[in-house]
Amino acid sequence: MYLRFLLNAIFILTVIACKPPSDERLPNIIIIFTDDQGYGDLGTYGAIGYTTPHLDKLAAEGIRFTNFYSAQAVCSASRAGLLTGCYPNRINIYGALMPWSKNGLHENEITIAEMLKQKGYATGIFGKWHLGHHRKFLPLQHGFDEYFGLPYSNDMWPVEFDGQPVDTTHRKSRYPVLRLIEGNEQTDTVATLEDQATLITRYTERAVRFIEKNKDQPFFLYFPHSMPHVPLGASEKFSGKSEQGMYGDVIMEIDWSVGQVLQALEKNGLTGNTLVVYTSDNGPWLNFGNHAGSTGGLREGKGTSFEGGQRVPCIIRWPGRAASGKVISNLAATIDLLPTIAAITGAGLPDHKIDGVNILPLILGEPEADPRDHLYYYYGRNNLEAVRKDNWKLVFPHKHRSYIGHAPGNDGWPGKTHQDSVGLELYNLRRDPGERYDVKDIYPEIVTRLKQLGDQARKDLGDELTGIKGKNRRECGWVE
Amino acid sequence: MYLRFLLNAIFILTVIACKPPSDERLPNIIIIFTDDQGYGDLGTYGAIGYTTPHLDKLAAEGIRFTNFYSAQAVCSASRAGLLTGCYPNRINIYGALMPWSKNGLHENEITIAEMLKQKGYATGIFGKWHLGHHRKFLPLQHGFDEYFGLPYSNDMWPVEFDGQPVDTTHRKSRYPVLRLIEGNEQTDTVATLEDQATLITRYTERAVRFIEKNKDQPFFLYFPHSMPHVPLGASEKFSGKSEQGMYGDVIMEIDWSVGQVLQALEKNGLTGNTLVVYTSDNGPWLNFGNHAGSTGGLREGKGTSFEGGQRVPCIIRWPGRAASGKVISNLAATIDLLPTIAAITGAGLPDHKIDGVNILPLILGEPEADPRDHLYYYYGRNNLEAVRKDNWKLVFPHKHRSYIGHAPGNDGWPGKTHQDSVGLELYNLRRDPGERYDVKDIYPEIVTRLKQLGDQARKDLGDELTGIKGKNRRECGWVE
Repeated sequence: MYLRFLLNAIFILTVIACKPPSDERLPNIIIIFTDDQGYGDLGTYGAIGYTTPHLDKLAAEGIRFTNFYSAQAVCSASRAGLLTGCYPNRINIYGALMPWSKNGLHENEITIAEMLKQKGYATGIFGKWHLGHHRKFLPLQHGFDEYFGLPYSNDMWPVEFDGQPVDTTHRKSRYPVLRLIEGNEQTDTVATLEDQATLITRYTERAVRFIEKNKDQPFFLYFPHSMPHVPLGASEKFSGKSEQGMYGDVIMEIDWSVGQVLQALEKNGLTGNTLVVYTSDNGPWLNFGNHAGSTGGLREGKGTSFEGGQRVPCIIRWPGRAASGKVISNLAATIDLLPTIAAITGAGLPDHKIDGVNILPLILGEPEADPRDHLYYYYGRNNLEAVRKDNWKLVFPHKHRSYIGHAPGNDGWPGKTHQDSVGLELYNLRRDPGERYDVKDIYPEIVTRLKQLGDQARKDLGDELTGIKGKNRRECGWVE
Repeated sequence: MYLRFLLNAIFILTVIACKPPSDERLPNIIIIFTDDQGYGDLGTYGAIGYTTPHLDKLAAEGIRFTNFYSAQAVCSASRAGLLTGCYPNRINIYGALMPWSKNGLHENEITIAEMLKQKGYATGIFGKWHLGHHRKFLPLQHGFDEYFGLPYSNDMWPVEFDGQPVDTTHRKSRYPVLRLIEGNEQTDTVATLEDQATLITRYTERAVRFIEKNKDQPFFLYFPHSMPHVPLGASEKFSGKSEQGMYGDVIMEIDWSVGQVLQALEKNGLTGNTLVVYTSDNGPWLNFGNHAGSTGGLREGKGTSFEGGQRVPCIIRWPGRAASGKVISNLAATIDLLPTIAAITGAGLPDHKIDGVNILPLILGEPEADPRDHLYYYYGRNNLEAVRKDNWKLVFPHKHRSYIGHAPGNDGWPGKTHQDSVGLELYNLRRDPGERYDVKDIYPEIVTRLKQLGDQARKDLGDELTGIKGKNRRECGWVE
């Protein structure tokens, strides 16, 4: 009898302790998205030569993914996937849009920001957009109330990596001057390395101000840093602070920035009711040598479908709701964020087809949850280069950028890469995340099963490698 | 009445939970040491297909190392280093001692157990010894009060991997029957796979009993599991429990075992005053395929000086003293445990030369601490195969086992390996922990500096690759 009473009391106490933060208000959503940060570039993922205390703490208070993928291993495609929940080839955004590109994210696509506007969220983006820089494509036309940042990558400017103007024969001479944008309008120029060095801090100030301003209503903060994409720049307070050099300085400043955001939440009593996501758009640009990150041992890097290109760090914290201090090895991807946020907020999903799955059960630590069945690795215009199911990855024959066998560059200047080719190969990513041991001859039945998955992808999305068109792709938007 | 009962219960629980560790008493030391567990084989290091909740929690409550090394990438040598704080070649223990070996750890060497006996510690080892199986070499002659376990590896028995006796032409036919040892005496036989399956649990019961028995005095528990070395065996409670198969089952049972040890500490109020170390003797034996672990992307595996051979997971927890939830990327090694434990307990160091350094400042989270300047990677009889300083690793030309290019084995049967060779190569382990990008041509000054480090190693310890003898090696022990 005593025992039953005690158990009841403990149960009630447990229920009180686990009660979710205020049911009255929808949770705030923050997505911090870095550029070219590799799988190995956080303390908690094994970084050497610099520390990331705020991010490590975020992981300790939340969950950390070890098999999390960006939508594609390159800037614009990756961002298109993150914001729409679609494989970027489904919506015809590929590669990195260039300053002369006339396309961008189609107005019919639904971004996380647009989805959350249905539920009355304040929405802001501070940082790099890269989904079309013509007015009709800019964030304010895609569900954001506020935008301050760069329209595309910070190396798309008419100067060299040392900040000196290029000569007229250089392709960069065709680039317009790179300016920060406020809302729909261009502002002051970013044309010197000194200005690049202020980007992390400037974006951060705006992000913090956005939180302060919207502390009394649900908000969605999308915070895509321009860094650590080259040319690197850290502000004075971090310049020279890392043992590793400038790359480490930049990561330390991003870590500081994360700390500022978390502090703003704490100060305004928003910590418990805010879901924070931290991830990267693709793996490191390895031929930039000491100005590039690390894949932590994964094969190749940015611009490839090998693990070093597309597997990225990901931390999610939601105090009192998400599991705490847990490491999750289930398959998940940035395209899963949109449907997951829909599930959290009750926002309606887009009417058209999307590719993301709801990973909320993983975030909440439900023991048997495994929502993502498989992943397609597309690259280039529309090449199906690999598929993954469980711990198996089947690579289809293709040509790819390779960093191996070249001297990496130094101090901001790139080294070479070359075109290599790979045949049909099967990897067991549990045993061999470094993709070194082709096991297709040992597991023919797995090869057969994953080939079927490839056929399924081709039927749906097409594949330029095999000349198959695919039935369900949509168009991107264009300007005249 | 109910309420008073409840309040009393809560009061008692609170008192128990908040009781500070006694300052009077020297801290207990527990070293849990697994066999052939790879760098990627814990949840918190990225494992796929099984979970390690107790170890993940241990890491969350303590510190986790990402650049931690065993003393050498093979059984006996690694254990010699761990227990004596010396490079194993310094004390002339190399490779894996065989059932017909007549040598073992010299009586003049000082183990952690002997060192702690000076301070009145109770000392016990439950598991695999592998530092000489003749009576004069057994643990009771090296500072341990209690020993229960196997004398060497669990595959050194006169049967095949399926448990069937081998024919008389097989080298294994020369092996004696493998028996568990209690103290100095052989006990019942371990000659079936069924018996192997009970090892983790049997060792665990003894470890827990040792904690219970010594709860009122300082103790040193050395807990070297026979698993996940092949042949794998998990008890009924874990057999078939992992998605990954038997390797996952075994790791899950080891994780359970860790939970049992921690629970015994908690139950006896010893949590706060006990330093727990968890690490592995070397990387995975990759040609055992689905019965082997994962390096998490590092190059090669057990039996090589590449990172996959010698870099191992390491977690240290010491509640209230060690930093909590911190990830440490500084260089450290199993040979550092002896001098660190000396510093913690005030025990005197051995009079002879050792190679370990005191890493207590790292464990305590002191911000500028970086006690280990460099590491030598020796392998084979006495081959200096590489040196590391900061994030740079210089590999000297040598022949090595390679797993690459072979079909791995399956279900307990090994696949092939081959002899490969490597030239002088420089790796930047910060950018390239997978050792894929030789950068010796870019950093000639680093090559020069690390070559000098190699010369220093050769002068001290010798090097069979260059025919240099070395001045400061000691002999191992021999039986007539």
